[in-house]
Amino acid sequence: MAEREFIARHLAPLATTAAARGLADDAAVWLPPLGRELVFTHDVLAQGVHYLPDDPPGDVAWKLLAVNLSDLAAMAATPAGVLLGLAGPDDQDWRADFAAGLGRALDHFGVALWGGDTVSGLDTTVLGLTAIGWVERGQALGRAGAQPGDALWVSGTIGDAGLGLAVAQGTAPHDKALLNRFRRPTPRLALGAALGGVASAGMDVSDGLLIDAERLAAASGVGLAIALDAVPLSRPATGLDDVLARVTAGDDYELLFSAPTSVDVAALAAPTRTPVTRIGTVTAGSGLSLSHAGKPITTPTRLGWEHP
Amino acid sequence: MAEREFIARHLAPLATTAAARGLADDAAVWLPPLGRELVFTHDVLAQGVHYLPDDPPGDVAWKLLAVNLSDLAAMAATPAGVLLGLAGPDDQDWRADFAAGLGRALDHFGVALWGGDTVSGLDTTVLGLTAIGWVERGQALGRAGAQPGDALWVSGTIGDAGLGLAVAQGTAPHDKALLNRFRRPTPRLALGAALGGVASAGMDVSDGLLIDAERLAAASGVGLAIALDAVPLSRPATGLDDVLARVTAGDDYELLFSAPTSVDVAALAAPTRTPVTRIGTVTAGSGLSLSHAGKPITTPTRLGWEHP
Repeated sequence: MAEREFIARHLAPLATTAAARGLADDAAVWLPPLGRELVFTHDVLAQGVHYLPDDPPGDVAWKLLAVNLSDLAAMAATPAGVLLGLAGPDDQDWRADFAAGLGRALDHFGVALWGGDTVSGLDTTVLGLTAIGWVERGQALGRAGAQPGDALWVSGTIGDAGLGLAVAQGTAPHDKALLNRFRRPTPRLALGAALGGVASAGMDVSDGLLIDAERLAAASGVGLAIALDAVPLSRPATGLDDVLARVTAGDDYELLFSAPTSVDVAALAAPTRTPVTRIGTVTAGSGLSLSHAGKPITTPTRLGWEHP
Repeated sequence: MAEREFIARHLAPLATTAAARGLADDAAVWLPPLGRELVFTHDVLAQGVHYLPDDPPGDVAWKLLAVNLSDLAAMAATPAGVLLGLAGPDDQDWRADFAAGLGRALDHFGVALWGGDTVSGLDTTVLGLTAIGWVERGQALGRAGAQPGDALWVSGTIGDAGLGLAVAQGTAPHDKALLNRFRRPTPRLALGAALGGVASAGMDVSDGLLIDAERLAAASGVGLAIALDAVPLSRPATGLDDVLARVTAGDDYELLFSAPTSVDVAALAAPTRTPVTRIGTVTAGSGLSLSHAGKPITTPTRLGWEHP
């Protein structure tokens, strides 16, 4: 199938807003909401690096959208539109399933496809997605801004995607919920939007709680004291090694954020129906100080997933 | 080299505006100019499909930016920022040269790097770029809008990139100017901006003058009568077959546009120092009607490059 036909049949039906111009022009045109700042992110998912070749194409589409929306959530932004870059083999079934899954994911999050590009004739699939959102002026979150004395919080539960990866790889027993945490992450958009202008710093946990916490600490010029026994887990840990495996596993897409202790974070999060847990405190100094049941724990050498 | 180190060393220096936040946050934040519409495009260049594996990395970077800016030019938009998706092998020399070339190209066009993502460990390079620009409200060009009686115009000269491809492939004698037309196209940003709200329809010529003209005709619901002997060529044609080769070759990135005959297009283009040539007339009906030296010419079966 020629690219034009694929676009007309499978992607144009997803381009439901005027901004996309039916994918018939050279670019999308959008009038942004007055007085807001715009937020832009672009993440790439490559077959064999970020997802497994036999992952369902609809789940790959979900993940591609979700990881980008998670970056918007981390900035306290509300998504508006996306552009897709789809490059890979000329596998019509895979592409049709991918497009259908992308359509369902866009519907779910209320986001419009604005445009993009497709290329076939390659051996491996490389997917890029640009997500555009908006935030009230001056309310965007960032990694810098955490202050000594602030509380450190995380949403949801940590390490489930890592457990789900083991399920997907066949090295752990089947568990649909964990598999979904790996394949169909949930960007914390409502919580992120609620944190704008309130949290002192924030980011999404994509490479592992500890490695991302270290990045937030470095960007803010502070230290972070984290109580590992406070980290929320969906499955009880078998011991400290298991806890350390959870907090260094990637793909959680939860939000990690700091806020002054004067902020009632639980009350702020309640309307968003997002669990939040305090896991530590921002300190003067630098880097991570870990503890477990009140005892100091040596920070592991490997803190998470380093992008290849 | 880890991705974080590559980004810090080679890409962060290109992210010179506040919107990029030094590439240190999860996304870019930009306050758009008041009352303007925003224009978004995303094009992918894949090694072996859109460029030759031994093309200089700096030229590949130039082309990646230029083809996206050409889409903005086609919409009469002025570029503001870009996001990069770089996926490919862990070839440090290639990546460093690519980043340096991208920096020079961004400088040349006065555009900022706002963010993006990098992945290594792949066999083939796939490059994606999202370009964001702005246009006065209601002034964006589109492919629909050409009216019977309008004049049809094209910028620059046609078919040079096709001749340059033959040089790059070693099937034609070396010619630096033609090679540059293939490797380092010039997006017609100043002309495009001047045409906003004036031209009735417009697009960029990326796949061949005839195939793109057919697309403009279809989007506008009109026919286009094109005098092939009026098409501007940088090298004299050896005959009609040679003319047909030029007008069906891709990668020109000139602008094709229609305007009422009451518009003094030459005067409009003069301040932009962009040559423009009238090549035909918009007609009632559909499709292309070609002529040469006053005689009708059968429209060829192959009108240009169909994207794989």
